[in-house]
Amino acid sequence: MLNTKPDHATLAKLSAAEVRAAIRRGDWDRHTAGLAAGKLQCNLAILPEAHALDFLRFCQRNPKPCPVVGVSDTGDPILPTLGRDIDIRSDVPRYRVFRDGEMTEEVTDIADLWRDDLVTVALGCSFTFENALMRAGIPVRHVELDRTVPMFNSDIELVPAGPFHGKMVVTMRPIPEDSVEDAWRISARFPQAHGAPLGRGDPAGFGIADLDAPDYGEAVPVHPGEVPVYWACGVTPQNVLRAARLPFCITHAPGHMLIADVAEDAATTVLQP
Amino acid sequence: MLNTKPDHATLAKLSAAEVRAAIRRGDWDRHTAGLAAGKLQCNLAILPEAHALDFLRFCQRNPKPCPVVGVSDTGDPILPTLGRDIDIRSDVPRYRVFRDGEMTEEVTDIADLWRDDLVTVALGCSFTFENALMRAGIPVRHVELDRTVPMFNSDIELVPAGPFHGKMVVTMRPIPEDSVEDAWRISARFPQAHGAPLGRGDPAGFGIADLDAPDYGEAVPVHPGEVPVYWACGVTPQNVLRAARLPFCITHAPGHMLIADVAEDAATTVLQP
Repeated sequence: MLNTKPDHATLAKLSAAEVRAAIRRGDWDRHTAGLAAGKLQCNLAILPEAHALDFLRFCQRNPKPCPVVGVSDTGDPILPTLGRDIDIRSDVPRYRVFRDGEMTEEVTDIADLWRDDLVTVALGCSFTFENALMRAGIPVRHVELDRTVPMFNSDIELVPAGPFHGKMVVTMRPIPEDSVEDAWRISARFPQAHGAPLGRGDPAGFGIADLDAPDYGEAVPVHPGEVPVYWACGVTPQNVLRAARLPFCITHAPGHMLIADVAEDAATTVLQP
Repeated sequence: MLNTKPDHATLAKLSAAEVRAAIRRGDWDRHTAGLAAGKLQCNLAILPEAHALDFLRFCQRNPKPCPVVGVSDTGDPILPTLGRDIDIRSDVPRYRVFRDGEMTEEVTDIADLWRDDLVTVALGCSFTFENALMRAGIPVRHVELDRTVPMFNSDIELVPAGPFHGKMVVTMRPIPEDSVEDAWRISARFPQAHGAPLGRGDPAGFGIADLDAPDYGEAVPVHPGEVPVYWACGVTPQNVLRAARLPFCITHAPGHMLIADVAEDAATTVLQP
Protein backbone atom coordinates (compact mmCIF):
# COMPACT_ATOMS: atom_id res chain seq x y z
CA MET A 1 0.00 0.00 0.00
CA LEU A 2 1.34 3.37 -0.97
CA ASN A 3 1.53 5.86 1.85
CA THR A 4 -0.43 8.56 0.09
CA LYS A 5 -2.06 11.26 2.16
CA PRO A 6 -5.82 11.72 1.76
CA ASP A 7 -7.22 14.70 -0.12
CA HIS A 8 -10.07 16.90 1.13
CA ALA A 9 -12.75 14.99 -0.80
CA THR A 10 -11.62 11.68 0.72
CA LEU A 11 -11.40 13.15 4.20
CA ALA A 12 -14.84 14.77 3.86
CA LYS A 13 -16.41 11.29 3.79
CA LEU A 14 -14.90 10.28 7.13
CA SER A 15 -16.25 10.55 10.66
CA ALA A 16 -14.96 13.13 13.11
CA ALA A 17 -12.90 10.45 14.88
CA GLU A 18 -11.41 9.28 11.59
CA VAL A 19 -10.52 12.85 10.58
CA ARG A 20 -8.86 13.41 13.96
CA ALA A 21 -6.93 10.15 13.52
CA ALA A 22 -5.67 11.36 10.12
CA ILE A 23 -4.63 14.66 11.69
CA ARG A 24 -2.93 12.84 14.57
CA ARG A 25 -0.96 10.66 12.11
CA GLY A 26 0.22 13.80 10.33
CA ASP A 27 -1.83 13.00 7.21
CA TRP A 28 -3.76 16.31 7.28
CA ASP A 29 -2.43 19.71 8.30
CA ARG A 30 -4.80 21.96 6.36
CA HIS A 31 -8.07 23.73 7.18
CA THR A 32 -11.07 21.78 8.47
CA ALA A 33 -13.96 23.59 6.72
CA GLY A 34 -16.38 21.07 5.24
CA LEU A 35 -14.98 18.11 7.19
CA ALA A 36 -17.09 15.86 9.50
CA ALA A 37 -20.33 17.54 8.42
CA GLY A 38 -22.73 18.14 11.28
CA LYS A 39 -20.09 17.99 14.01
CA LEU A 40 -19.09 20.92 16.21
CA GLN A 41 -15.80 22.58 15.27
CA CYS A 42 -13.94 24.55 17.90
CA ASN A 43 -11.61 27.48 18.32
CA LEU A 44 -8.92 26.78 20.90
CA ALA A 45 -7.20 28.62 23.70
CA ILE A 46 -4.63 26.64 25.67
CA LEU A 47 -3.23 28.63 28.56
CA PRO A 48 -1.62 28.26 32.00
CA GLU A 49 -3.99 27.51 34.88
CA ALA A 50 -2.89 30.77 36.54
CA HIS A 51 -4.86 32.64 33.85
CA ALA A 52 -7.67 30.14 33.24
CA LEU A 53 -10.16 31.46 35.80
CA ASP A 54 -9.85 35.00 34.43
CA PHE A 55 -10.17 33.71 30.89
CA LEU A 56 -13.33 31.76 31.73
CA ARG A 57 -14.73 34.86 33.45
CA PHE A 58 -13.91 36.84 30.32
CA CYS A 59 -15.71 34.31 28.12
CA GLN A 60 -18.74 34.24 30.45
CA ARG A 61 -18.99 38.02 30.18
CA ASN A 62 -18.60 38.03 26.40
CA PRO A 63 -20.57 34.98 25.33
CA LYS A 64 -21.24 36.03 21.75
CA PRO A 65 -17.59 36.19 20.62
CA CYS A 66 -16.41 33.63 23.22
CA PRO A 67 -18.91 30.75 23.58
CA VAL A 68 -17.21 28.13 25.79
CA VAL A 69 -17.99 24.59 24.63
CA GLY A 70 -15.39 22.62 26.60
CA VAL A 71 -12.77 23.05 29.32
CA SER A 72 -10.09 20.48 30.18
CA ASP A 73 -8.77 19.50 33.56
CA THR A 74 -5.46 21.20 34.35
CA GLY A 75 -2.56 19.40 32.69
CA ASP A 76 -4.83 16.84 31.04
CA PRO A 77 -4.67 16.88 27.23
CA ILE A 78 -7.79 14.72 26.88
CA LEU A 79 -11.19 16.34 26.28
CA PRO A 80 -13.79 13.66 27.10
CA THR A 81 -16.78 16.01 27.07
CA LEU A 82 -16.17 16.92 23.42
CA GLY A 83 -15.37 13.51 21.98
CA ARG A 84 -13.90 10.08 22.40
CA ASP A 85 -10.11 9.94 22.67
CA ILE A 86 -9.49 13.58 21.77
CA ASP A 87 -5.83 14.40 22.54
CA ILE A 88 -5.46 18.13 22.19
CA ARG A 89 -1.66 17.76 21.70
CA SER A 90 -2.05 16.12 18.30
CA ASP A 91 -5.63 16.24 17.02
CA VAL A 92 -5.68 19.77 15.57
CA PRO A 93 -4.08 20.37 12.15
CA ARG A 94 -2.09 23.49 13.07
CA TYR A 95 -1.34 25.37 16.26
CA ARG A 96 0.10 28.79 16.96
CA VAL A 97 2.38 29.28 19.94
CA PHE A 98 2.58 32.67 21.64
CA ARG A 99 5.20 33.81 24.15
CA ASP A 100 4.73 37.20 25.82
CA GLY A 101 2.12 38.05 23.18
CA GLU A 102 4.33 37.29 20.18
CA MET A 103 3.70 34.34 17.88
CA THR A 104 6.89 32.32 17.97
CA GLU A 105 5.92 29.11 16.16
CA GLU A 106 3.24 27.54 13.98
CA VAL A 107 3.34 23.78 14.45
CA THR A 108 1.29 20.65 13.71
CA ASP A 109 1.74 18.98 17.12
CA ILE A 110 2.29 20.37 20.61
CA ALA A 111 3.33 17.22 22.50
CA ASP A 112 6.81 18.69 23.05
CA LEU A 113 5.31 21.94 24.36
CA TRP A 114 2.78 20.37 26.72
CA ARG A 115 2.98 21.39 30.39
CA ASP A 116 1.31 20.13 33.54
CA ASP A 117 -0.28 23.52 34.18
CA LEU A 118 -2.06 23.96 30.85
CA VAL A 119 -5.83 24.25 30.54
CA THR A 120 -7.61 23.88 27.20
CA VAL A 121 -10.64 26.06 26.54
CA ALA A 122 -12.63 25.14 23.41
CA LEU A 123 -14.91 27.79 21.92
CA GLY A 124 -17.66 27.43 19.33
CA CYS A 125 -17.08 28.73 15.80
CA SER A 126 -19.06 30.19 12.94
CA PHE A 127 -18.93 27.04 10.78
CA THR A 128 -21.87 25.79 12.83
CA PHE A 129 -24.35 28.53 11.95
CA GLU A 130 -22.97 28.93 8.41
CA ASN A 131 -23.77 25.27 7.77
CA ALA A 132 -27.28 25.85 9.11
CA LEU A 133 -27.74 28.91 6.88
CA MET A 134 -26.62 26.97 3.82
CA ARG A 135 -28.89 24.03 4.69
CA ALA A 136 -31.75 26.56 4.72
CA GLY A 137 -30.77 27.80 1.26
CA ILE A 138 -29.31 31.10 2.46
CA PRO A 139 -26.14 31.86 0.49
CA VAL A 140 -22.88 32.44 2.36
CA ARG A 141 -20.84 34.61 0.03
CA HIS A 142 -17.30 33.91 1.23
CA VAL A 143 -17.96 30.16 1.03
CA GLU A 144 -19.34 30.56 -2.52
CA LEU A 145 -16.20 32.49 -3.47
CA ASP A 146 -13.85 30.17 -1.52
CA ARG A 147 -12.52 33.12 0.48
CA THR A 148 -11.88 33.63 4.18
CA VAL A 149 -14.78 35.45 5.85
CA PRO A 150 -14.15 39.23 6.08
CA MET A 151 -13.43 40.28 9.68
CA PHE A 152 -13.29 43.76 11.15
CA ASN A 153 -12.06 45.38 14.35
CA SER A 154 -15.28 46.92 15.68
CA ASP A 155 -15.68 49.66 18.27
CA ILE A 156 -17.66 47.34 20.59
CA GLU A 157 -15.93 47.28 23.97
CA LEU A 158 -15.63 43.86 25.55
CA VAL A 159 -16.44 43.35 29.23
CA PRO A 160 -13.00 42.93 30.84
CA ALA A 161 -11.80 40.20 33.23
CA GLY A 162 -8.32 40.22 34.74
CA PRO A 163 -5.75 40.86 31.97
CA PHE A 164 -8.32 40.20 29.22
CA HIS A 165 -9.95 43.18 27.54
CA GLY A 166 -10.26 44.90 24.17
CA LYS A 167 -12.73 45.37 21.37
CA MET A 168 -14.81 42.82 19.54
CA VAL A 169 -13.89 41.46 16.13
CA VAL A 170 -16.96 40.99 13.95
CA THR A 171 -17.62 39.14 10.70
CA MET A 172 -19.78 40.43 7.86
CA ARG A 173 -21.90 38.29 5.57
CA PRO A 174 -24.10 39.82 2.84
CA ILE A 175 -27.59 38.36 3.16
CA PRO A 176 -30.47 38.85 0.69
CA GLU A 177 -32.93 41.33 2.20
CA ASP A 178 -35.78 38.80 2.24
CA SER A 179 -33.63 36.19 4.03
CA VAL A 180 -32.31 38.42 6.83
CA GLU A 181 -35.07 37.48 9.25
CA ASP A 182 -34.49 33.78 8.62
CA ALA A 183 -30.73 34.19 9.00
CA TRP A 184 -31.33 35.88 12.34
CA ARG A 185 -33.68 33.19 13.58
CA ILE A 186 -31.48 30.32 12.40
CA SER A 187 -28.22 31.62 13.85
CA ALA A 188 -29.96 32.53 17.13
CA ARG A 189 -30.47 28.79 17.61
CA PHE A 190 -26.73 28.37 18.05
CA PRO A 191 -25.60 30.38 21.09
CA GLN A 192 -22.66 27.94 21.23
CA ALA A 193 -21.58 29.36 17.85
CA HIS A 194 -21.89 33.17 18.22
CA GLY A 195 -25.71 33.07 18.09
CA ALA A 196 -27.84 35.78 16.49
CA PRO A 197 -26.21 38.66 14.60
CA LEU A 198 -25.08 41.79 16.44
CA GLY A 199 -26.79 43.96 13.86
CA ARG A 200 -27.19 44.81 10.20
CA GLY A 201 -26.73 47.66 7.77
CA ASP A 202 -24.39 50.61 8.07
CA PRO A 203 -20.85 49.49 8.96
CA ALA A 204 -20.26 52.85 10.66
CA GLY A 205 -22.63 51.63 13.38
CA PHE A 206 -19.89 49.20 14.39
CA GLY A 207 -17.00 51.60 13.87
CA ILE A 208 -16.12 49.96 10.56
CA ALA A 209 -14.80 52.43 7.97
CA ASP A 210 -14.84 50.34 4.80
CA LEU A 211 -16.41 46.93 4.16
CA ASP A 212 -13.98 46.48 1.25
CA ALA A 213 -10.99 46.70 3.59
CA PRO A 214 -11.38 44.00 6.23
CA ASP A 215 -8.81 43.83 9.02
CA TYR A 216 -8.56 40.04 8.59
CA GLY A 217 -9.76 37.65 5.90
CA GLU A 218 -10.86 38.78 2.45
CA ALA A 219 -13.44 41.29 1.23
CA VAL A 220 -16.61 40.00 -0.44
CA PRO A 221 -19.07 41.97 -2.56
CA VAL A 222 -22.46 43.06 -1.20
CA HIS A 223 -24.82 42.79 -4.16
CA PRO A 224 -27.90 44.95 -4.80
CA GLY A 225 -30.78 43.65 -2.68
CA GLU A 226 -28.41 42.34 -0.03
CA VAL A 227 -27.79 43.67 3.47
CA PRO A 228 -24.50 43.43 5.35
CA VAL A 229 -25.13 41.42 8.52
CA TYR A 230 -22.62 41.35 11.39
CA TRP A 231 -21.84 38.52 13.79
CA ALA A 232 -19.43 38.23 16.72
CA CYS A 233 -16.18 36.55 15.66
CA GLY A 234 -13.97 33.90 17.25
CA VAL A 235 -10.85 35.91 16.39
CA THR A 236 -11.87 38.13 19.31
CA PRO A 237 -10.54 35.78 22.04
CA GLN A 238 -7.37 35.17 20.02
CA ASN A 239 -6.66 38.91 19.84
CA VAL A 240 -7.50 39.36 23.50
CA LEU A 241 -5.19 36.50 24.49
CA ARG A 242 -2.38 37.96 22.44
CA ALA A 243 -2.91 41.47 23.81
CA ALA A 244 -2.81 40.12 27.38
CA ARG A 245 0.81 39.13 26.65
CA LEU A 246 0.64 35.92 28.64
CA PRO A 247 4.06 34.35 29.05
CA PHE A 248 2.79 31.30 27.15
CA CYS A 249 -0.33 30.26 25.31
CA ILE A 250 -1.34 28.19 22.31
CA THR A 251 -4.22 28.63 19.87
CA HIS A 252 -5.29 26.78 16.73
CA ALA A 253 -4.21 28.36 13.43
CA PRO A 254 -7.17 30.17 11.82
CA GLY A 255 -9.47 27.71 10.02
CA HIS A 256 -7.57 24.72 11.45
CA MET A 257 -10.08 23.70 14.09
CA LEU A 258 -10.66 20.96 16.61
CA ILE A 259 -13.45 18.70 15.32
CA ALA A 260 -15.61 17.34 18.16
CA ASP A 261 -17.88 14.30 18.21
CA VAL A 262 -20.66 16.51 19.56
CA ALA A 263 -23.36 17.32 16.98
CA GLU A 264 -23.31 21.01 16.07
CA ASP A 265 -27.04 21.26 16.79
CA ALA A 266 -26.98 19.34 20.10
CA ALA A 267 -28.82 20.89 23.05
CA THR A 268 -25.55 21.03 25.00
CA THR A 269 -21.94 20.65 23.91
CA VAL A 270 -21.33 17.85 26.41
CA LEU A 271 -21.00 14.43 24.79
CA GLN A 272 -23.68 12.11 26.14
CA PRO A 273 -22.41 8.71 27.33
CA MET B 1 -43.90 57.93 58.53
CA LEU B 2 -44.26 54.58 60.19
CA ASN B 3 -41.42 52.19 59.54
CA THR B 4 -43.63 49.41 58.26
CA LYS B 5 -42.09 46.68 56.15
CA PRO B 6 -43.63 46.09 52.72
CA ASP B 7 -45.74 43.01 52.06
CA HIS B 8 -45.37 40.73 49.04
CA ALA B 9 -48.12 42.48 47.06
CA THR B 10 -46.45 45.87 47.55
CA LEU B 11 -43.02 44.50 46.68
CA ALA B 12 -44.36 42.75 43.59
CA LYS B 13 -45.07 46.15 42.02
CA LEU B 14 -41.46 47.32 42.35
CA SER B 15 -38.52 47.10 39.95
CA ALA B 16 -35.69 44.63 40.48
CA ALA B 17 -33.47 47.44 41.80
CA GLU B 18 -36.18 48.57 44.22
CA VAL B 19 -36.71 45.03 45.50
CA ARG B 20 -32.95 44.62 46.02
CA ALA B 21 -32.89 47.93 47.89
CA ALA B 22 -35.68 46.69 50.19
CA ILE B 23 -33.74 43.49 50.79
CA ARG B 24 -30.53 45.45 51.44
CA ARG B 25 -32.34 47.62 54.01
CA GLY B 26 -33.54 44.49 55.78
CA ASP B 27 -37.16 45.13 54.79
CA TRP B 28 -37.58 41.76 53.04
CA ASP B 29 -36.05 38.44 54.09
CA ARG B 30 -38.55 36.03 52.53
CA HIS B 31 -38.71 34.16 49.22
CA THR B 32 -38.52 36.01 45.90
CA ALA B 33 -41.01 34.04 43.78
CA GLY B 34 -43.27 36.42 41.86
CA LEU B 35 -41.11 39.50 42.49
CA ALA B 36 -39.68 41.72 39.71
CA ALA B 37 -41.65 39.88 37.02
CA GLY B 38 -39.67 39.29 33.86
CA LYS B 39 -36.26 39.60 35.49
CA LEU B 40 -33.75 36.78 35.82
CA GLN B 41 -33.54 35.23 39.29
CA CYS B 42 -30.37 33.42 40.28
CA ASN B 43 -29.13 30.59 42.45
CA LEU B 44 -25.86 31.47 44.17
CA ALA B 45 -22.59 29.78 44.98
CA ILE B 46 -19.99 31.91 46.74
CA LEU B 47 -16.73 30.07 47.20
CA PRO B 48 -12.98 30.60 47.63
CA GLU B 49 -11.01 31.33 44.45
CA ALA B 50 -8.97 28.18 45.08
CA HIS B 51 -12.05 26.16 44.10
CA ALA B 52 -13.62 28.52 41.56
CA LEU B 53 -11.91 27.18 38.42
CA ASP B 54 -12.98 23.62 39.25
CA PHE B 55 -16.50 24.79 40.03
CA LEU B 56 -16.76 26.64 36.71
CA ARG B 57 -15.45 23.53 34.93
CA PHE B 58 -18.08 21.50 36.77
CA CYS B 59 -20.83 23.90 35.67
CA GLN B 60 -19.59 23.91 32.06
CA ARG B 61 -19.75 20.11 32.02
CA ASN B 62 -23.22 20.01 33.58
CA PRO B 63 -24.98 22.94 31.96
CA LYS B 64 -28.54 21.76 32.49
CA PRO B 65 -28.46 21.72 36.31
CA CYS B 66 -25.73 24.41 36.54
CA PRO B 67 -26.28 27.18 33.97
CA VAL B 68 -23.77 29.92 34.81
CA VAL B 69 -25.25 33.40 34.33
CA GLY B 70 -22.65 35.53 36.11
CA VAL B 71 -19.21 35.29 37.75
CA SER B 72 -17.67 37.98 39.95
CA ASP B 73 -14.09 39.10 40.11
CA THR B 74 -12.24 37.57 43.04
CA GLY B 75 -12.97 39.44 46.26
CA ASP B 76 -15.36 41.86 44.54
CA PRO B 77 -18.91 41.71 45.92
CA ILE B 78 -20.31 43.74 43.00
CA LEU B 79 -21.87 41.97 40.02
CA PRO B 80 -22.04 44.54 37.21
CA THR B 81 -22.90 42.08 34.44
CA LEU B 82 -26.14 41.09 36.20
CA GLY B 83 -27.39 44.50 37.32
CA ARG B 84 -26.68 47.98 38.49
CA ASP B 85 -25.23 48.29 41.98
CA ILE B 86 -25.73 44.65 42.97
CA ASP B 87 -23.83 44.00 46.20
CA ILE B 88 -23.90 40.27 46.81
CA ARG B 89 -23.18 40.78 50.53
CA SER B 90 -26.60 42.32 51.19
CA ASP B 91 -28.92 42.01 48.19
CA VAL B 92 -30.18 38.45 48.71
CA PRO B 93 -32.90 37.82 51.33
CA ARG B 94 -31.26 34.80 52.99
CA TYR B 95 -27.94 33.05 52.78
CA ARG B 96 -26.70 29.71 54.01
CA VAL B 97 -23.12 29.40 55.26
CA PHE B 98 -21.31 26.08 55.01
CA ARG B 99 -18.07 25.10 56.73
CA ASP B 100 -16.49 21.75 55.85
CA GLY B 101 -19.78 20.74 54.25
CA GLU B 102 -21.95 21.48 57.28
CA MET B 103 -24.45 24.33 57.31
CA THR B 104 -23.45 26.50 60.25
CA GLU B 105 -25.61 29.61 59.81
CA GLU B 106 -28.59 31.00 57.92
CA VAL B 107 -28.25 34.79 57.74
CA THR B 108 -29.72 37.80 55.95
CA ASP B 109 -26.42 39.57 55.25
CA ILE B 110 -22.87 38.31 54.71
CA ALA B 111 -20.87 41.54 55.02
CA ASP B 112 -19.20 40.23 58.17
CA LEU B 113 -18.30 36.98 56.44
CA TRP B 114 -16.91 38.50 53.24
CA ARG B 115 -13.33 37.60 52.30
CA ASP B 116 -10.92 38.87 49.69
CA ASP B 117 -10.67 35.44 48.08
CA LEU B 118 -14.38 34.85 47.46
CA VAL B 119 -15.85 34.39 43.98
CA THR B 120 -19.58 34.59 43.35
CA VAL B 121 -21.08 32.28 40.74
CA ALA B 122 -24.71 33.03 39.81
CA LEU B 123 -26.73 30.25 38.20
CA GLY B 124 -30.05 30.41 36.38
CA CYS B 125 -33.16 29.04 38.09
CA SER B 126 -36.44 27.43 37.14
CA PHE B 127 -38.58 30.51 37.87
CA THR B 128 -37.60 31.70 34.38
CA PHE B 129 -39.11 28.84 32.40
CA GLU B 130 -42.02 28.39 34.82
CA ASN B 131 -43.03 31.99 34.16
CA ALA B 132 -42.83 31.32 30.42
CA LEU B 133 -44.96 28.17 30.78
CA MET B 134 -47.60 30.07 32.74
CA ARG B 135 -47.61 32.93 30.23
CA ALA B 136 -48.37 30.29 27.58
CA GLY B 137 -51.29 29.00 29.64
CA ILE B 138 -49.57 25.79 30.74
CA PRO B 139 -50.41 25.09 34.38
CA VAL B 140 -47.60 24.70 36.91
CA ARG B 141 -49.08 22.55 39.64
CA HIS B 142 -46.86 23.45 42.61
CA VAL B 143 -47.44 27.15 41.93
CA GLU B 144 -51.19 26.58 41.76
CA LEU B 145 -51.04 24.76 45.09
CA ASP B 146 -48.54 27.22 46.64
CA ARG B 147 -46.10 24.40 47.36
CA THR B 148 -42.38 24.02 46.82
CA VAL B 149 -41.65 22.13 43.60
CA PRO B 150 -41.06 18.39 44.24
CA MET B 151 -37.38 17.48 43.81
CA PHE B 152 -35.79 14.05 43.59
CA ASN B 153 -32.31 12.57 43.80
CA SER B 154 -32.00 10.94 40.36
CA ASP B 155 -29.53 8.26 39.26
CA ILE B 156 -28.07 10.57 36.57
CA GLU B 157 -24.31 10.80 37.14
CA LEU B 158 -22.85 14.28 36.83
CA VAL B 159 -19.63 14.87 34.89
CA PRO B 160 -17.06 15.47 37.64
CA ALA B 161 -14.51 18.30 37.94
CA GLY B 162 -11.99 18.47 40.77
CA PRO B 163 -13.79 17.86 44.08
CA PHE B 164 -17.23 18.33 42.51
CA HIS B 165 -19.22 15.23 41.58
CA GLY B 166 -22.45 13.42 42.40
CA LYS B 167 -25.86 12.76 40.96
CA MET B 168 -28.36 15.18 39.49
CA VAL B 169 -31.35 16.48 41.39
CA VAL B 170 -34.41 16.74 39.15
CA THR B 171 -37.77 18.48 39.50
CA MET B 172 -41.09 17.03 38.36
CA ARG B 173 -44.02 19.01 37.00
CA PRO B 174 -47.24 17.32 35.84
CA ILE B 175 -48.08 18.64 32.36
CA PRO B 176 -51.30 17.95 30.42
CA GLU B 177 -50.52 15.41 27.69
CA ASP B 178 -51.49 17.83 24.90
CA SER B 179 -49.21 20.57 26.31
CA VAL B 180 -46.07 18.49 26.74
CA GLU B 181 -44.67 19.37 23.33
CA ASP B 182 -45.24 23.09 23.97
CA ALA B 183 -43.68 22.84 27.42
CA TRP B 184 -40.63 21.22 25.87
CA ARG B 185 -40.29 23.85 23.16
CA ILE B 186 -40.84 26.76 25.53
CA SER B 187 -38.40 25.65 28.22
CA ALA B 188 -35.79 24.76 25.57
CA ARG B 189 -35.64 28.50 24.81
CA PHE B 190 -34.08 29.08 28.23
CA PRO B 191 -30.77 27.21 28.39
CA GLN B 192 -29.81 29.77 31.07
CA ALA B 193 -32.60 28.28 33.20
CA HIS B 194 -32.19 24.49 32.89
CA GLY B 195 -33.54 24.41 29.32
CA ALA B 196 -35.60 21.59 27.87
CA PRO B 197 -36.76 18.73 30.10
CA LEU B 198 -34.55 15.71 30.68
CA GLY B 199 -37.44 13.39 29.94
CA ARG B 200 -41.00 12.42 30.73
CA GLY B 201 -43.04 9.51 32.01
CA ASP B 202 -41.91 6.66 34.23
CA PRO B 203 -40.00 7.96 37.27
CA ALA B 204 -38.06 4.68 37.40
CA GLY B 205 -36.28 5.88 34.27
CA PHE B 206 -34.57 8.46 36.47
CA GLY B 207 -34.05 6.16 39.44
CA ILE B 208 -36.98 7.73 41.28
CA ALA B 209 -38.92 5.23 43.42
CA ASP B 210 -42.04 7.22 44.31
CA LEU B 211 -43.29 10.55 42.94
CA ASP B 212 -45.29 11.01 46.13
CA ALA B 213 -42.14 10.99 48.24
CA PRO B 214 -39.86 13.75 46.96
CA ASP B 215 -36.41 14.10 48.51
CA TYR B 216 -36.90 17.88 48.78
CA GLY B 217 -39.93 20.14 48.40
CA GLU B 218 -43.49 18.86 48.49
CA ALA B 219 -45.37 16.22 46.50
CA VAL B 220 -47.98 17.33 43.97
CA PRO B 221 -50.70 15.19 42.36
CA VAL B 222 -50.42 14.02 38.74
CA HIS B 223 -53.98 14.09 37.45
CA PRO B 224 -55.45 11.79 34.77
CA GLY B 225 -54.41 13.04 31.34
CA GLU B 226 -51.19 14.53 32.71
CA VAL B 227 -47.63 13.33 32.25
CA PRO B 228 -44.82 13.77 34.77
CA VAL B 229 -42.10 15.83 33.10
CA TYR B 230 -38.58 16.08 34.59
CA TRP B 231 -36.18 19.01 34.49
CA ALA B 232 -32.65 19.50 35.84
CA CYS B 233 -32.72 21.28 39.21
CA GLY B 234 -30.62 24.05 40.74
CA VAL B 235 -30.38 22.15 44.03
CA THR B 236 -27.83 19.98 42.20
CA PRO B 237 -24.94 22.44 42.53
CA GLN B 238 -25.87 23.12 46.15
CA ASN B 239 -25.68 19.42 46.99
CA VAL B 240 -22.45 19.03 45.06
CA LEU B 241 -20.89 22.01 46.86
CA ARG B 242 -21.90 20.61 50.21
CA ALA B 243 -20.63 17.12 49.36
CA ALA B 244 -17.26 18.58 48.30
CA ARG B 245 -16.87 19.69 51.94
CA LEU B 246 -15.15 22.96 51.05
CA PRO B 247 -13.73 24.68 54.13
CA PHE B 248 -16.06 27.60 53.42
CA CYS B 249 -18.83 28.47 51.02
CA ILE B 250 -22.09 30.39 50.97
CA THR B 251 -25.29 29.78 49.01
CA HIS B 252 -28.67 31.48 48.92
CA ALA B 253 -31.39 29.87 51.03
CA PRO B 254 -33.78 27.89 48.79
CA GLY B 255 -36.31 30.20 47.12
CA HIS B 256 -34.49 33.30 48.37
CA MET B 257 -32.81 34.30 45.13
CA LEU B 258 -30.70 37.09 43.71
CA ILE B 259 -32.90 39.19 41.40
CA ALA B 260 -30.95 40.55 38.42
CA ASP B 261 -31.72 43.51 36.15
CA VAL B 262 -31.23 41.22 33.15
CA ALA B 263 -34.48 40.21 31.43
CA GLU B 264 -35.18 36.53 31.86
CA ASP B 265 -35.65 36.14 28.10
CA ALA B 266 -32.57 38.14 27.08
CA ALA B 267 -30.30 36.61 24.44
CA THR B 268 -27.41 36.66 26.92
CA THR B 269 -27.33 37.15 30.68
CA VAL B 270 -24.88 40.05 30.40
CA LEU B 271 -26.45 43.43 31.12
CA GLN B 272 -26.11 45.67 28.09
CA PRO B 273 -24.73 49.15 28.83
